[in-house]
Amino acid sequence: MVSVSLGAHKYGKAENRVVRIYRDTPRHEIVDLNVTSQLTGAALAPSYFEGDNGPVVATDTQKNTIFAFAKKHGIRSPEEFLLTLADHFVSGFEWIEGGLWQAEQYEWERILVDGQPHDHSFVRSGRGTRLAAVRAVDGETHVTGGVKDLVVLKSTGSEFAGFPRDTYTTLVETDDRVMATSVTGRWRFIPEAVAAGIDYNGLYAEVSAVLLSTFATVHSLALQQTLWEMGRAAIEARPEIAEVRFAMPNKHHFVYDLSPFGLENPNEVFYAADRPYGLIEGTITRDGVAPAPAAWADLPTFV
Amino acid sequence: MVSVSLGAHKYGKAENRVVRIYRDTPRHEIVDLNVTSQLTGAALAPSYFEGDNGPVVATDTQKNTIFAFAKKHGIRSPEEFLLTLADHFVSGFEWIEGGLWQAEQYEWERILVDGQPHDHSFVRSGRGTRLAAVRAVDGETHVTGGVKDLVVLKSTGSEFAGFPRDTYTTLVETDDRVMATSVTGRWRFIPEAVAAGIDYNGLYAEVSAVLLSTFATVHSLALQQTLWEMGRAAIEARPEIAEVRFAMPNKHHFVYDLSPFGLENPNEVFYAADRPYGLIEGTITRDGVAPAPAAWADLPTFV
Amino acid sequence: MVSVSLGAHKYGKAENRVVRIYRDTPRHEIVDLNVTSQLTGAALAPSYFEGDNGPVVATDTQKNTIFAFAKKHGIRSPEEFLLTLADHFVSGFEWIEGGLWQAEQYEWERILVDGQPHDHSFVRSGRGTRLAAVRAVDGETHVTGGVKDLVVLKSTGSEFAGFPRDTYTTLVETDDRVMATSVTGRWRFIPEAVAAGIDYNGLYAEVSAVLLSTFATVHSLALQQTLWEMGRAAIEARPEIAEVRFAMPNKHHFVYDLSPFGLENPNEVFYAADRPYGLIEGTITRDGVAPAPAAWADLPTFV
Amino acid sequence: MVSVSLGAHKYGKAENRVVRIYRDTPRHEIVDLNVTSQLTGAALAPSYFEGDNGPVVATDTQKNTIFAFAKKHGIRSPEEFLLTLADHFVSGFEWIEGGLWQAEQYEWERILVDGQPHDHSFVRSGRGTRLAAVRAVDGETHVTGGVKDLVVLKSTGSEFAGFPRDTYTTLVETDDRVMATSVTGRWRFIPEAVAAGIDYNGLYAEVSAVLLSTFATVHSLALQQTLWEMGRAAIEARPEIAEVRFAMPNKHHFVYDLSPFGLENPNEVFYAADRPYGLIEGTITRDGVAPAPAAWADLPTFV
Repeated sequence: MVSVSLGAHKYGKAENRVVRIYRDTPRHEIVDLNVTSQLTGAALAPSYFEGDNGPVVATDTQKNTIFAFAKKHGIRSPEEFLLTLADHFVSGFEWIEGGLWQAEQYEWERILVDGQPHDHSFVRSGRGTRLAAVRAVDGETHVTGGVKDLVVLKSTGSEFAGFPRDTYTTLVETDDRVMATSVTGRWRFIPEAVAAGIDYNGLYAEVSAVLLSTFATVHSLALQQTLWEMGRAAIEARPEIAEVRFAMPNKHHFVYDLSPFGLENPNEVFYAADRPYGLIEGTITRDGVAPAPAAWADLPTFV
Repeated sequence: MVSVSLGAHKYGKAENRVVRIYRDTPRHEIVDLNVTSQLTGAALAPSYFEGDNGPVVATDTQKNTIFAFAKKHGIRSPEEFLLTLADHFVSGFEWIEGGLWQAEQYEWERILVDGQPHDHSFVRSGRGTRLAAVRAVDGETHVTGGVKDLVVLKSTGSEFAGFPRDTYTTLVETDDRVMATSVTGRWRFIPEAVAAGIDYNGLYAEVSAVLLSTFATVHSLALQQTLWEMGRAAIEARPEIAEVRFAMPNKHHFVYDLSPFGLENPNEVFYAADRPYGLIEGTITRDGVAPAPAAWADLPTFV
Repeated sequence: MVSVSLGAHKYGKAENRVVRIYRDTPRHEIVDLNVTSQLTGAALAPSYFEGDNGPVVATDTQKNTIFAFAKKHGIRSPEEFLLTLADHFVSGFEWIEGGLWQAEQYEWERILVDGQPHDHSFVRSGRGTRLAAVRAVDGETHVTGGVKDLVVLKSTGSEFAGFPRDTYTTLVETDDRVMATSVTGRWRFIPEAVAAGIDYNGLYAEVSAVLLSTFATVHSLALQQTLWEMGRAAIEARPEIAEVRFAMPNKHHFVYDLSPFGLENPNEVFYAADRPYGLIEGTITRDGVAPAPAAWADLPTFV
Repeated sequence: MVSVSLGAHKYGKAENRVVRIYRDTPRHEIVDLNVTSQLTGAALAPSYFEGDNGPVVATDTQKNTIFAFAKKHGIRSPEEFLLTLADHFVSGFEWIEGGLWQAEQYEWERILVDGQPHDHSFVRSGRGTRLAAVRAVDGETHVTGGVKDLVVLKSTGSEFAGFPRDTYTTLVETDDRVMATSVTGRWRFIPEAVAAGIDYNGLYAEVSAVLLSTFATVHSLALQQTLWEMGRAAIEARPEIAEVRFAMPNKHHFVYDLSPFGLENPNEVFYAADRPYGLIEGTITRDGVAPAPAAWADLPTFV
């Protein structure tokens, strides 16, 4: 019989859709999260080897804890909520060495009635989804914030030229194109800033705005350059951020050839293609900050 | 051999993703559509019977026409763009008797830079998707507007009680619940109003606002009642509307039972469920307007 | 105030995922359905007008009934299961005049162990999803079967030529192309055959096989022709079928232009495109059978 | 101004849908892939810093290369195709230091006509999607195979008990439950085996069969245990495999409570839930083989 060992592993409950309503006053608040909790530790190996569940904090228990904590501790921000969960599991069960806690947050805006925001009625904004993650590993706790599905487009101010040409190159250079992408980005917080406390909601709003305005104002020679400038702007805006990672699909908008029909098309009519698409990924790091590859190891979709 | 006949049929090109940029001034405008064109007519039968494509205006030709018309005629509103396509195909090919043209429109907002809306950079708003359809059949042309994926939630102001109880009824009555739905609605325009010309973009903005504010302000005893009031409000708001149809999933938010953990949960922590879901569909019609079942026959997802 | 009325309406519980295991012997059987139940009737109007739920058989009650009936009556076939539900609601509540019941069925195959099908372990086959629907309206009950997402491709034996050319036509004629589609089809059963009893499972297997073999063997001059022949073959195969409706996207496979690289491409390397796509829809009816437009009125995605 | 640096990065063209038909004889063969190519190297930094595209092998060029190579080199297996691409880019451009190449493969079965497999007509099998990846980094080339969306269920032979109970534990122990999962697995090949040449297609077929039969025959005390046994069996079956990683959602099937209706439910009627779901991830490694964390660093969805 072949000899084998257990490598990296974790387990938990994924996609717990928890909605927290604050209704202490007639003006309700809503926080809407999709939370995943996963635990790890060497002591869990027997559940793999022989189905011994003695150390297995049930995934159902993790789920109950998430919903109970939404009441008991509330949800000030997804980052703080995940930190509370991480602390509970790692401190509360001596054999749990670490884990990964992730959240998506869906944004709701108040419905306007006669121009006034309503007290308890909301419409879902689809402008990107907020991300948060906490990873506890090797005695350290890493916190990241982020955003996904933030879809942006600029109708000019983007070029692409100067690339090398080989046997398989047919692309024509352009000094004016539509550039569009769906931004997925995560920013890792400096541990000292986490320890000191961060206004995560304010930071998210500010970083989101900075990403958008940087995308808008950079005259782009390559999506890589735009990505780099967006990351740099985020780091410049907030001292709590150690590094930023992006995955940006280049959502191609092709100028439709109208010449067979006797029509000119000076960048006015585009075909928005689905696949294939360019995919640019990159990390921008603040100089002088200790790297933390473990913070990223398990997060989806990165570099 | 069994004798068979050809019944209802249509064919065309679906999901043409056409993006039109207006760049006559430095302040660009963007219109982003997903257009489907389908044609019908008795003369097309030979293509089914024996693969005789003599009358088959190729689906590729329909695609080219869509993109060419985006330049030639522009896209003032999805309804007007579809009307232009319908007229072209039905008038231009004597054997094409009618068809169905549909569009989805994706909304873009200007990115704010230093508080000012940018000239040529946009972020996609995800707050619902606009719908339009034109159906030409039996010498008549029906126009509908609409919206889908408009997700709304109210955290109070919703009850559900008084329903009948049989062997299979376990549901508990409630006088306070979260009510959430993803509104899909279509409104049919009165033919005389179409002939006179409609400000379709202004109407869409107004109807969307009316749907939201009605959802917000109706104290709901049933999702059916909310649906009815939303349709009535739309018809009252705009004389161009003959009838409104809705499909509204009841996106259940269940109060999570925290009593095993010694915690109360006075409608504060909810589990947002995926499936199954309630599904309420209904039509509200303006009295005195001629019905037009043909307008609805081929539209997706309705009643 | 504008005067309005309630038009067509229905309500119920959608997408109840019910899995029924038969375990009377060590060789288990599995039936896996996604069931939607919706009810209608003039007496339901007060729930729309004023939130009077007196006649509203709760959607939760409909859900309970589905799961209870899976035990009480079993699930021999999706068509029979839906007929039992329809009869229960229409007969059991005098004010319920009709409704629509729909099901998708997911197919499971036994896992092979040492070449033998296992008694209680299954792998999901993804080869199409079975459809069924029952519509009770105006005192009649219509039954349809069907399939969706049955993806087929032929690498030759397909032409497209002879179509008309206008200003917007650029498509080149071809006498050899890849033809691929994802078949969605529904077949309506003759009421007398329903009354006499049908082996729905056997029929589904036979019709699925006939659709596939007809797609394979017809030399296609147009997707329309293939659609027609597939419908005709189904009607010829089974006397219980009154008519067949199809929606077939033409999943384009474009020959990739390799000439810039000094390579020939005699229909060997294709780019499989997503959007736009051709969309061909058509109905094939058995001559001499009474039409039943009401059977189709509410079903998704048709003609 | 804050000082920042460029960290990990890569760029390329994602989701190239390439279909290769072999038609040298009347009996055609089809290979259907979705290929992603991404490149990296320190020399690419100027494209990020200042939009200098001198070193940027355009993503469009990468796309052309994929389609050209499908003709020039053919596609014997996804692993070999990706290796050819990797070698081309890393050897052909001195400043490209490495990259990641990924493929999904969609399986087609021949349509049966009169019981015989057809020469050129195929139906898509939905039984899982094959995965392959090649990562070139630091002068080494790592090859992995895999599968995703392989959905399996056993209707008995699964228990879950003996887990710890805390304040938030309400789960009841069970000695008989339905266990279902959608297997995503990847196996890394031993470099020496890659160098010697592997029958990747034969290996995939064998490993898939072994995963299924192991799932079927292991009496499961925890999904963790089943995962472990499946990985061990794959390693035992094929000496080319160094390690296996799995992500297995526990697709919960809850016994529906029929007691309010006076019905027993001895594990016969289940509600198949969507979210939340358990999520078990783990790695099984062959003892004595050198670890290769870099092989996994960028692959989606793992541990």
